[in-house]
Amino acid sequence: MPSAAASFEPAYARRMGRMKASEIRELLKLLERPGIISFAGGIPDPKLFPADAAAEAYRNALASPERASAALQYSISEGYVPLRAWIAEHMAAQGVPATPDNIVITTGSQQGLDFLGKLLIDPGDTVLTTVPTYLGALQAFSAYEPRYDGIRPGDGNRTPGSYAEAAATAGGRAKIVYVVPDFSNPTGETLSLVAREDLLRLAREIDAPILEDAAYRALRFEGTPLPSLQALDVAATGSFETSRVVYLGTFSKTVAPGLRVAWICGSQAIIRRLVLITQASELNVSVINQMVMHEIASRRHEGLIEQARAHYRVKRDAMLAALAAHMPQSVRWTRPEGGLFVWVTLPEGLDGAELLKRAVAEASVAFVPGGAFHPDVGGANTIRLSYSLPTPEAIAEGVRRLASLL
Amino acid sequence: MPSAAASFEPAYARRMGRMKASEIRELLKLLERPGIISFAGGIPDPKLFPADAAAEAYRNALASPERASAALQYSISEGYVPLRAWIAEHMAAQGVPATPDNIVITTGSQQGLDFLGKLLIDPGDTVLTTVPTYLGALQAFSAYEPRYDGIRPGDGNRTPGSYAEAAATAGGRAKIVYVVPDFSNPTGETLSLVAREDLLRLAREIDAPILEDAAYRALRFEGTPLPSLQALDVAATGSFETSRVVYLGTFSKTVAPGLRVAWICGSQAIIRRLVLITQASELNVSVINQMVMHEIASRRHEGLIEQARAHYRVKRDAMLAALAAHMPQSVRWTRPEGGLFVWVTLPEGLDGAELLKRAVAEASVAFVPGGAFHPDVGGANTIRLSYSLPTPEAIAEGVRRLASLL
Repeated sequence: MPSAAASFEPAYARRMGRMKASEIRELLKLLERPGIISFAGGIPDPKLFPADAAAEAYRNALASPERASAALQYSISEGYVPLRAWIAEHMAAQGVPATPDNIVITTGSQQGLDFLGKLLIDPGDTVLTTVPTYLGALQAFSAYEPRYDGIRPGDGNRTPGSYAEAAATAGGRAKIVYVVPDFSNPTGETLSLVAREDLLRLAREIDAPILEDAAYRALRFEGTPLPSLQALDVAATGSFETSRVVYLGTFSKTVAPGLRVAWICGSQAIIRRLVLITQASELNVSVINQMVMHEIASRRHEGLIEQARAHYRVKRDAMLAALAAHMPQSVRWTRPEGGLFVWVTLPEGLDGAELLKRAVAEASVAFVPGGAFHPDVGGANTIRLSYSLPTPEAIAEGVRRLASLL
Repeated sequence: MPSAAASFEPAYARRMGRMKASEIRELLKLLERPGIISFAGGIPDPKLFPADAAAEAYRNALASPERASAALQYSISEGYVPLRAWIAEHMAAQGVPATPDNIVITTGSQQGLDFLGKLLIDPGDTVLTTVPTYLGALQAFSAYEPRYDGIRPGDGNRTPGSYAEAAATAGGRAKIVYVVPDFSNPTGETLSLVAREDLLRLAREIDAPILEDAAYRALRFEGTPLPSLQALDVAATGSFETSRVVYLGTFSKTVAPGLRVAWICGSQAIIRRLVLITQASELNVSVINQMVMHEIASRRHEGLIEQARAHYRVKRDAMLAALAAHMPQSVRWTRPEGGLFVWVTLPEGLDGAELLKRAVAEASVAFVPGGAFHPDVGGANTIRLSYSLPTPEAIAEGVRRLASLL
């Protein structure tokens, strides 16, 4: 009796218990309707995408039979050599003497986070991270069943011994220190030089690698760029091979995310193992997309960054001005020097998730409640506002409406 | 003293002990030199790549601001809706009533294998597979620390109880039955209808899902197509949701691998969980590549398949004729009705890996020793020959040279 057969459910791996549909992401799918002012996404403004340059680069990649054959074929797992060479020079300009052997190309930084979780985390190990932190990093790492412990670099870290001890008590080791040091997702904040040195010291004492997620680093509107954690550590330890910092770079915020091209920069020992993971996990990143990204980056990267900085600076200014104009005294927020996010702390007792429901229903405004960025619980009275997509006028109007609910 | 610092090595996850550089893949990198006749790769012939159609499709994807904004942006983890709709119709034509909700797009089938390993395998669980089997599947699954057990569908399977018992003794469960039923990599063989029924029975009795890797299924040169395992199981159990077969399809062998676009087709319960894995592992497959693949597939898929069949049939014929003409009596080989591979069994005591060294040095011929396709040990006296890349003339000459070494 075929129709009486029960639905088939395989025995899933234990890790699947950690992989829930993000309520937030599901909710946000419903919010793509016209008329809503969305501070939710955190995705780049498509007005900045270099569509003409991309069209030209795709044409060039397929223009000769030789190039087309390479563009459409399998390739080495390390990534397209000219792109890795360009990235190595780009990293060198930031003060780290990278060679192409220090680079592996990934399908977006999200894949880099997944591969680093695969490389490093056994069940029960500990990931140290600021709280709040990037939701996608938590999703990537959680597949490998770690626990999380919170750090506050430059402002109240516990002793290294206490982190190591807590990790051991939980049955593993502190395997990863994860941070977004520049214009963090979700808070928009940047770690000071003191905080960076503090973090490096902590990582050395507990002997863990630091994963430096540099997704927003290029988008500085003002102020002095700070050296990357990787640059500081390479300088302090004398070489790439002695540094414990693994740097995740991406073209998603400076060129376009749709090509899914990003990179990891680290010691050759670590990169070699990530290449094995790439081979086992997807063979290689799309070759044609790597060729196209190489052409766009080598011709236009600086110009695109300048454009993006100018574009988002205006929006950041609009948001900060509107917050100052409309928010009650009891509300606090960050003042980012770059990136895409402002982090708002509501009065104690207010709930960001509840506010979202009201904001959507009563004010046609959307954002992400801050709880989503907490590994365990917490942050109920916080919200993340992204100014990346709406116009400055819509930003002003959206903040005004949001403030009227408080 | 920076210069005295030791190289930094993090504490890697235990799974990394299972992820070694494939000696074969490393060796083959050295063999890309001109003059060598390579039966090694198993990659599609770039002469078949639809470069003009791809160029047109990339142009179209970027032609209007609206399309370009979507093509270059992030998107949903499920995959591009029109592509999933096209694939669902394509699957329906093969006898499975798929809807877009039964499909998730992956960055190549290799990523599909990785995601299914992530979904299903806990350390110590068992993967049942034919021996030999696809090397890349072993690499993908091994990251999740299973053991392997060999099946011989239609020809000497053990009892279901004995597989289940061996899995339990090893400390886990039989979680996956993995097969390439049509024109297998590496043997070129196709499972008969009896073997397919046999395999479905085994999977039902041990209550494990079957992963049906259909990478070569479209490349049939002659003979009658057999129903997919998924079509048989959907028919037998009455619906998609009751079927235990998860089907991995790909455009890599029929259109081009460089776009890295493939799919998994299965019950909605399984696809929903794979979407969570996609979200955590890479957010989404390159949108522009999905749009381009949709345009090429919907306009040219049948024609491309016909072309590929005709192209590879001639090469298969050349290889079988050369084997018959030159190989000594003591050598046996498969006679594939499609796909890209012939599997050669040398006389007992001969070693494929040793033969490769001699073949490269003395005859400028390359292939893959069969041991690489064995989960544990075995197959020392076997080799895999791919006829996909060399011309028919080169195939004849390469087989002649190889035979002269025996």
